[in-house]
Amino acid sequence: MSTQARTNSPKVHAETAPKIQPGSTPSIVPAPVVLTDRPGHLAYYHWVRAGSEAFAAMLEPEDMAIQSMPDASPTKWHLAHTSWFFETFLLLPHAPHYTPFDESFSVLFNSYYEQIGPQWARAQRGQLSRPTINQVLNYRTHVNAAMEQLIATTSQSTWETIRILIILGLNHEQQHQELMATDLKHMLAQNPLSPAPFDAPFKHTPQNISPLSPLSWSELEGGIVSQGRDLHPEEFAFDNEGPCHDVVLQPYLLANRLVTNGDYLAFIQDKGYGRSELWLSDGWADVRSHKWAHPLYWRAQEDGSYTEYTLAGVQALDLSQPVTHLSAYEAAAYAQWAGARLPREAELEHATKGKALTGNFYAPGAIAPHPHRAQRDEAPLQQLFGDCWEWTQSAYSAYPRYQAPRGAVGEYNGKFMCNQMVLRGGSCATPHGHMRTTYRNFFPAGTRWQFSGLRLALDTPA
Amino acid sequence: MSTQARTNSPKVHAETAPKIQPGSTPSIVPAPVVLTDRPGHLAYYHWVRAGSEAFAAMLEPEDMAIQSMPDASPTKWHLAHTSWFFETFLLLPHAPHYTPFDESFSVLFNSYYEQIGPQWARAQRGQLSRPTINQVLNYRTHVNAAMEQLIATTSQSTWETIRILIILGLNHEQQHQELMATDLKHMLAQNPLSPAPFDAPFKHTPQNISPLSPLSWSELEGGIVSQGRDLHPEEFAFDNEGPCHDVVLQPYLLANRLVTNGDYLAFIQDKGYGRSELWLSDGWADVRSHKWAHPLYWRAQEDGSYTEYTLAGVQALDLSQPVTHLSAYEAAAYAQWAGARLPREAELEHATKGKALTGNFYAPGAIAPHPHRAQRDEAPLQQLFGDCWEWTQSAYSAYPRYQAPRGAVGEYNGKFMCNQMVLRGGSCATPHGHMRTTYRNFFPAGTRWQFSGLRLALDTPA
Amino acid sequence: MSTQARTNSPKVHAETAPKIQPGSTPSIVPAPVVLTDRPGHLAYYHWVRAGSEAFAAMLEPEDMAIQSMPDASPTKWHLAHTSWFFETFLLLPHAPHYTPFDESFSVLFNSYYEQIGPQWARAQRGQLSRPTINQVLNYRTHVNAAMEQLIATTSQSTWETIRILIILGLNHEQQHQELMATDLKHMLAQNPLSPAPFDAPFKHTPQNISPLSPLSWSELEGGIVSQGRDLHPEEFAFDNEGPCHDVVLQPYLLANRLVTNGDYLAFIQDKGYGRSELWLSDGWADVRSHKWAHPLYWRAQEDGSYTEYTLAGVQALDLSQPVTHLSAYEAAAYAQWAGARLPREAELEHATKGKALTGNFYAPGAIAPHPHRAQRDEAPLQQLFGDCWEWTQSAYSAYPRYQAPRGAVGEYNGKFMCNQMVLRGGSCATPHGHMRTTYRNFFPAGTRWQFSGLRLALDTPA
Amino acid sequence: MSTQARTNSPKVHAETAPKIQPGSTPSIVPAPVVLTDRPGHLAYYHWVRAGSEAFAAMLEPEDMAIQSMPDASPTKWHLAHTSWFFETFLLLPHAPHYTPFDESFSVLFNSYYEQIGPQWARAQRGQLSRPTINQVLNYRTHVNAAMEQLIATTSQSTWETIRILIILGLNHEQQHQELMATDLKHMLAQNPLSPAPFDAPFKHTPQNISPLSPLSWSELEGGIVSQGRDLHPEEFAFDNEGPCHDVVLQPYLLANRLVTNGDYLAFIQDKGYGRSELWLSDGWADVRSHKWAHPLYWRAQEDGSYTEYTLAGVQALDLSQPVTHLSAYEAAAYAQWAGARLPREAELEHATKGKALTGNFYAPGAIAPHPHRAQRDEAPLQQLFGDCWEWTQSAYSAYPRYQAPRGAVGEYNGKFMCNQMVLRGGSCATPHGHMRTTYRNFFPAGTRWQFSGLRLALDTPA
Repeated sequence: MSTQARTNSPKVHAETAPKIQPGSTPSIVPAPVVLTDRPGHLAYYHWVRAGSEAFAAMLEPEDMAIQSMPDASPTKWHLAHTSWFFETFLLLPHAPHYTPFDESFSVLFNSYYEQIGPQWARAQRGQLSRPTINQVLNYRTHVNAAMEQLIATTSQSTWETIRILIILGLNHEQQHQELMATDLKHMLAQNPLSPAPFDAPFKHTPQNISPLSPLSWSELEGGIVSQGRDLHPEEFAFDNEGPCHDVVLQPYLLANRLVTNGDYLAFIQDKGYGRSELWLSDGWADVRSHKWAHPLYWRAQEDGSYTEYTLAGVQALDLSQPVTHLSAYEAAAYAQWAGARLPREAELEHATKGKALTGNFYAPGAIAPHPHRAQRDEAPLQQLFGDCWEWTQSAYSAYPRYQAPRGAVGEYNGKFMCNQMVLRGGSCATPHGHMRTTYRNFFPAGTRWQFSGLRLALDTPA
Repeated sequence: MSTQARTNSPKVHAETAPKIQPGSTPSIVPAPVVLTDRPGHLAYYHWVRAGSEAFAAMLEPEDMAIQSMPDASPTKWHLAHTSWFFETFLLLPHAPHYTPFDESFSVLFNSYYEQIGPQWARAQRGQLSRPTINQVLNYRTHVNAAMEQLIATTSQSTWETIRILIILGLNHEQQHQELMATDLKHMLAQNPLSPAPFDAPFKHTPQNISPLSPLSWSELEGGIVSQGRDLHPEEFAFDNEGPCHDVVLQPYLLANRLVTNGDYLAFIQDKGYGRSELWLSDGWADVRSHKWAHPLYWRAQEDGSYTEYTLAGVQALDLSQPVTHLSAYEAAAYAQWAGARLPREAELEHATKGKALTGNFYAPGAIAPHPHRAQRDEAPLQQLFGDCWEWTQSAYSAYPRYQAPRGAVGEYNGKFMCNQMVLRGGSCATPHGHMRTTYRNFFPAGTRWQFSGLRLALDTPA
Repeated sequence: MSTQARTNSPKVHAETAPKIQPGSTPSIVPAPVVLTDRPGHLAYYHWVRAGSEAFAAMLEPEDMAIQSMPDASPTKWHLAHTSWFFETFLLLPHAPHYTPFDESFSVLFNSYYEQIGPQWARAQRGQLSRPTINQVLNYRTHVNAAMEQLIATTSQSTWETIRILIILGLNHEQQHQELMATDLKHMLAQNPLSPAPFDAPFKHTPQNISPLSPLSWSELEGGIVSQGRDLHPEEFAFDNEGPCHDVVLQPYLLANRLVTNGDYLAFIQDKGYGRSELWLSDGWADVRSHKWAHPLYWRAQEDGSYTEYTLAGVQALDLSQPVTHLSAYEAAAYAQWAGARLPREAELEHATKGKALTGNFYAPGAIAPHPHRAQRDEAPLQQLFGDCWEWTQSAYSAYPRYQAPRGAVGEYNGKFMCNQMVLRGGSCATPHGHMRTTYRNFFPAGTRWQFSGLRLALDTPA
Repeated sequence: MSTQARTNSPKVHAETAPKIQPGSTPSIVPAPVVLTDRPGHLAYYHWVRAGSEAFAAMLEPEDMAIQSMPDASPTKWHLAHTSWFFETFLLLPHAPHYTPFDESFSVLFNSYYEQIGPQWARAQRGQLSRPTINQVLNYRTHVNAAMEQLIATTSQSTWETIRILIILGLNHEQQHQELMATDLKHMLAQNPLSPAPFDAPFKHTPQNISPLSPLSWSELEGGIVSQGRDLHPEEFAFDNEGPCHDVVLQPYLLANRLVTNGDYLAFIQDKGYGRSELWLSDGWADVRSHKWAHPLYWRAQEDGSYTEYTLAGVQALDLSQPVTHLSAYEAAAYAQWAGARLPREAELEHATKGKALTGNFYAPGAIAPHPHRAQRDEAPLQQLFGDCWEWTQSAYSAYPRYQAPRGAVGEYNGKFMCNQMVLRGGSCATPHGHMRTTYRNFFPAGTRWQFSGLRLALDTPA
């Protein structure tokens, strides 16, 4: 675990989380800060793994079996796939006497690793009633026991090989924890019963709502700045975050906070969804073919107002909360309408460099992940982490001299460097401790089911 | 219940079923024979309804939630829809103080009754994790209690109105019991784990296998014969079985038994799936676009042999069992290859008139429904009922002077009289006591997921 | 050519056509009545073939190249395919020294004859800019010259073999002449310029419009009547018209004339397209998915009135003309709304038996085919032939003892006996001399681009 | 016209073209070099416009009407749309008495300018037989006459406004000339007759083939370099080429020539299309769903060799010619296989800065556009312009401070800055005089029907 990761370690989160989420589940014990020895790694392993199961504990078996679109997988599949990752990349190569839980799982729960072998078709993940959730939880127990033994007993030389793979597997599982939340939300949102398996994050009462920060701008000078990080065995980062390299940034302005529901409502009321001149061509095509008229989970009421589906059920729309579940097209159209633009990836990285990695992140438990309003405070740049992923105008591409690792693990990031846009900063569904300033998330521009929003940027007037 | 129905009453089945299905669930108590009084009806109501729940008891929650194609619905949906039928057509109009279990169910579990109101889209029935199976079972309990009270306490004049609707609702539920089996089978068959929630119907041992009857033909004279039945308040039949009317039948021959897996294998080995001249044009298009090469649940093995997926898991292919899960196209191509033809609907009705309604029918329980081999006996026409629905060459159409009933119930049969072919005789998934000689089943010609097979016919040489 | 065909021979048409179509092209010389000798056949051959070219002469090269849907083929393709038929079934087997015009045409212009070989995909017929129309006309000239020589010089025994194939080929070409008109109309109707390559059939002036016949009914007794005809070498008929056999008809009533635009407008104004209870289930699905709200080529005007696209351009809707370009679903829904039903195939055949085969048929030339209003006269059953094909409620199926001919010619009719409904009587686009009382046309129930309408029927009150 | 454009003026091309294309049509007279006065502009207008008609003169009417896929338009549509551009942006706003040729054309021939109004659906451009090619040529004549008058008679202040729009319209027409060639090629390539409307560019004989240059590498230093150009009224460039700005380039290597058919064949023979690890994820999905196994117009022969469809018909594959009609996915997979990478956009611009804009460009006429082999000469970087567009690894995005122009003309480039990859350098179908070193072409990564190939790049070893 990296130095930087230590600064945003669960200990730090443990300090801040209670203020944000008073009802969060105490069963999610923060991982130990120090990951230098094997027991530390094992504790961290169990902490991350338990987070996935804490999520499942809130759900019915049916909730975890159904798939609402090819992009979104059933909870049950995520729970199995994250175990498959450890089985495939750790146990089968490195645990001499390991017996797979079920041979057929090697195909069923391979996501996209072509070099490992065939995959059960992504769009068919919701066709499998078996294994049941109970069988999947048994699979997890089986893998956990074997991992425990591997960590405890493997030779030192193997340990040095596998340590980074274990950290990768846990970061991978954290990514899937975020997807469990967003995929489940997408599925439940189709249901006219509007299920609410989670508790609302808080009640807004006059006492606890401080007024929203007004929009203001921070000026950043730019110049020749460094982007990315060089990979280092002691500091975990994904391969796509490096190598560190120089880029030229012209002076720019960033808004102090995320765009809110209230801001976005003004765009809608100004007929933003009907004005082609605000939209990228592919975005306009999506607006028309999908009849987009508001963010994904807003629901127009007969009186012209909106409610919003959340994992805690349908809620009145809070105009001061960040707008979320936007595609990059909607984010860009909003920015165009507002006389601004989306930030570039390098601009956001530059602006966040050295900032504390705190924010509204996710602790799997009883509380629904949802973005929070910005606090009225003096910080010139709020909400840099957590709440909503921030769309950038930058296509996801390789940094200079980037090389994907060899072997199947190299498929993790590199092969997606086409037709995707970068998002930065993490969201309310990103687990605590998972974020870095160099972290690059990426999705196709039409993606709406992630907790994605935006912050405005401007060119500094010449 | 009709006189005819009495002759194939559950009492009769109770006598024959044990021979066939030694392990069948004793909890499925046959209904009383006499349906003339209210207690008799209530007992019959509970007997039919319990059959649905006995089926569900064999399954996991996930098995009942997933939908594998638009034509097939989740078990959970069937369990709810059959209750919706009683709620909509009996309780809401006739039970003065009835409170619906959940208002939203009126849309969610309406199948296709346009006059009742909107319907949750058929292809999206598997998108609903909620209501869970437990909630659906509570819904059933709620409806059952109200039905019990309605039957017990309603006025005599209302009783006379609703009695036939109750019988209709129970026949409707029996049709859905058949669909529960075939829809579940379709879903589980997609699963590479080949789940086996049911027990195999029997073990074939040298002792209990009598040799298969050789193919032989019965000659029927035809002439001007009557088809269908006039509807009568005391004898339940579906509206589409009447009115009774005359048709001209030329002399014809019928095979003594259903076409077997062994017969069909010879067609495959003679390249039947590759010879366009044997096929109807639409069938040939399906062969090519779906790459059909054998019946739906056969699985080609590397050595050229086949196994077959059943609700008791994958089995070796029994060549003496009737071939099943054929489309009408495959049935017609086989008949063409065999130098014969499919029977006409009126021919099969004529041939079965007056025959005992016994056969391999379905008693919901632990035993997987599956067609049985014909017995070597002296009966010139075996397997006329049960085992497999028999495809005919007759399009499903209105008999002369047929009128659909007024109101939503009139949507039950009449509006489907286009683009469907008639099947006759019932199958191993048709509940005991549900069949009649005039019974008309109908599906599009490309349908394969029902227990559908064929019997050969010939024109008597001139 | 049959006796019956002689009674509706071109000579007869030549007498009646001028009354109907004063501007019809004189270049379409009627064929000689007598087809007993080779010169007679050759003259008939040239007469039919010239009809196709007379149609093409009205069009631009682009009009003949474009395909507007998979069901409809470019004019150019029809002109080539009808020549391919003679090349494939007459010249290649029977003309010893025949050289194909272009080897590649054997695939390009095979429609659906699997036993001949592969076919250029139907949906891709409009992808071929080459051969150009000029090359296709050269192909026709090449085939005609070879056919002329074959007819003149082949041995008598071959002549006796091929004579019926020639007649078949010419009837086949006449069917394609009808399709040329309907396919072209479909393509041009997509064009916002509303091209009008043909002249309107007539101007309706006060002088030449006799009032429309009011609706009246003819009662027919039914009973055991014969249907179909036995095939006979001297009387051409398609194989599907036989064998002759008995059917039982209950007494029925037929309307005196086709349903008119005015009749149908009342159905629309009574919200017929919005009332699910009037529709077959598949029809209602089509109404909703295709947003059907009026016949195919009607165009709703802002003032609530309608115009109609014809091959002579957009015309005001003549309320007294037969409604046309209806699907069977619309025809059935209209009949349901009108308190009547569609006729059965056997009823229409029975009613027309022995009637003169005259009517508004098609003579390829400058005049647009279009249905005419019924004349006010004393005939109890008008418009039995020509104007519009009449949808029946009968699925297209094999008559008892029907056998498709062996070989590729056997694919002509038999393999389509599924998922199609029978239409009877011919239309304004059916060439003169092509119709018979036993003639069976068939299309899927959703088909709208043919000149299809309906006549009402009723059960005689018991 | 810019200074730079002057250096690659038609006069220069006139000197080089004869060597390359001995049979090129003399009717394509180069435009005058000087565009400072109105007659100069008019002559240039007529020169460009005549190029489009010279292309059409090689074709049959049917060739110009048919559309083979939504991305590709009929020749006829291009000829009309380029006239619509002048009518819409020049004549209607600026020619006071201009009468549109046909009012309906404003919709039919609007491509994607939402601010102008509705558009005839792109995928339906091939559904229009009318207007015929003759009517479209009349439309061109009508527009040309009006443009001639406008240029000659408009006031000086209007002239200063419209001059740049005329140049834009002519550059727009040149872009469509390229599309006319590639769209026609796509359509004709579907045709099993393999039409050859154009002449082959040359015969390869032993005398005229110099040996191919071996692959070698040029090292470029990079550093902080400028990219793009600032727009200037006297120098035409598209808006997306600016503003000029600095970027950081690390040292890199570029191959001396384009990848050849022979190079690419080695990739195929090494099973490049079957090795997932070489491909971007979206590319691998395309390989599998489209069954890609070679470049778009290659045709596998039974003996394992390949031919290639060209606008001059099918040709033996010349292994020394540049491989073309590759998607960006294939280009990237090839580069990966070759141990190299695709260049970045800024790298190619940097490498070509100051180089003469000569190469194998297109002069509309009788000669088929096709890439030429690299010459064995001393130039370290050959084929920088013409022959094939070179795929880059750079997504098409806005340069810093880029602003799309206001109004409909602003839709030309900016709204496409998503989901597209940049190509550089022009192709054999790009008209002479159209290219600039800052020119940015862009297409989705899966695009294959353009003349697109690649040049290898490498990071300079550290």
